[in-house]
Amino acid sequence: MTTLPMIGCTTWVVADGYIPPTSTGPIPEMVSHDSVCMLNAGEADATVELWVFFTDRDPQGPYVLPVPARRAHHQRINDLRLPAAVPIGVDYSLVLHSDTPIVVQHTRLDSRQPANALMSTIAFPVP
Amino acid sequence: MTTLPMIGCTTWVVADGYIPPTSTGPIPEMVSHDSVCMLNAGEADATVELWVFFTDRDPQGPYVLPVPARRAHHQRINDLRLPAAVPIGVDYSLVLHSDTPIVVQHTRLDSRQPANALMSTIAFPVP
Amino acid sequence: MTTLPMIGCTTWVVADGYIPPTSTGPIPEMVSHDSVCMLNAGEADATVELWVFFTDRDPQGPYVLPVPARRAHHQRINDLRLPAAVPIGVDYSLVLHSDTPIVVQHTRLDSRQPANALMSTIAFPVP
Amino acid sequence: MTTLPMIGCTTWVVADGYIPPTSTGPIPEMVSHDSVCMLNAGEADATVELWVFFTDRDPQGPYVLPVPARRAHHQRINDLRLPAAVPIGVDYSLVLHSDTPIVVQHTRLDSRQPANALMSTIAFPVP
Repeated sequence: MTTLPMIGCTTWVVADGYIPPTSTGPIPEMVSHDSVCMLNAGEADATVELWVFFTDRDPQGPYVLPVPARRAHHQRINDLRLPAAVPIGVDYSLVLHSDTPIVVQHTRLDSRQPANALMSTIAFPVP
Repeated sequence: MTTLPMIGCTTWVVADGYIPPTSTGPIPEMVSHDSVCMLNAGEADATVELWVFFTDRDPQGPYVLPVPARRAHHQRINDLRLPAAVPIGVDYSLVLHSDTPIVVQHTRLDSRQPANALMSTIAFPVP
Repeated sequence: MTTLPMIGCTTWVVADGYIPPTSTGPIPEMVSHDSVCMLNAGEADATVELWVFFTDRDPQGPYVLPVPARRAHHQRINDLRLPAAVPIGVDYSLVLHSDTPIVVQHTRLDSRQPANALMSTIAFPVP
Repeated sequence: MTTLPMIGCTTWVVADGYIPPTSTGPIPEMVSHDSVCMLNAGEADATVELWVFFTDRDPQGPYVLPVPARRAHHQRINDLRLPAAVPIGVDYSLVLHSDTPIVVQHTRLDSRQPANALMSTIAFPVP
């Protein structure tokens, strides 16, 4: 594989965070969830710190997520546990800070009604 | 939490605004809606002015939306009341201007047919 | 309304164009369609030229779309007629060129199956 | 058609790659799939090299995709065969590198449940 330039940014934002509180269909694939999908295309391992911002209280974090060199890591927000689970059915936003450049995409699967809905966007890269 | 740089921009655009006029499912969560999800990750409170642009008449606004420091605020367009409600079933676009940097993501839930559809995108940041 | 800076860019790209060939539900709102949603937030009227690129033949256009000053214009690709209709069920891409800055968002409603699906993204702004 | 400036970038990233493993509806149009939709609006043919990054093993590629001058090319990831098929039901990310500027949009159709879901985003352009 040809050597690539540094790919991505070190700080990313997802403004629309929300874990739909109910689900329809088989577990775990059809459980309603919010995900941050991260690519570390570089040669150095990345440590990502994720913070959750809420409407009515101080930010919660950091959630520490290792993303090895030349690896993808898709993280369901539902599965975060330390320092605390992210509440379901609650509005939030995310800030991710990595010690080496990564790329972040935000995706939600919502299966509250019996045919799942999807949405996705590249997150906002902070220059 | 480590001190973050200023995150975001002060002017954002959503070009595809539309509130689907009908809904299927429980109120309020499954009511068809358009939302602007805003994050103010900074240390200063933000005041956001939102303007609605239409196809056939002058822009309507400003809608004044406070977003406190270090807080998320997800605003359904359906719920805006002052200076006037945004009409449903009508094409529009949005310009948001904040007095301090924020990040904006646009999301629509469309439950006109009995399984909701979702779409989302980071809004366009004006440099 | 406070005077805004020039908002947007003059050239925009949508890479994933496709009009789903069938539909479920009432006409016209649930007819499967691809749209480009444009905002001209400026003080000068815009003339937008849209070109359609295909997999196996030369680009088709220009489709000339006026977007008045301070107006939104949501254009279904299905409804374009001059110089020729855009074929349905065929892969394409779009390039839009405006004589004054605009913002473009691309949205598809797909109602081939009896619960509509949506997707949307801010188009790619050419610097 | 008026001569356009060089449109796009040479390196693009899709962070959320996933081919849903099951489908509902007619083949091939409703088969669950991930696509990269590419536009080469320029006057020179492009050769695109696509690499697939995984969670637990080294990147796989390059997949070599020619995109002729002034042509669109929508590529289902499901259909890639050389050097090897991309596994279904597995998390991945994509890096695309082109020898001339292109624009890339990522779209997924998920028909695991009997009404398809869609998601789309302009990919991340590496400056």
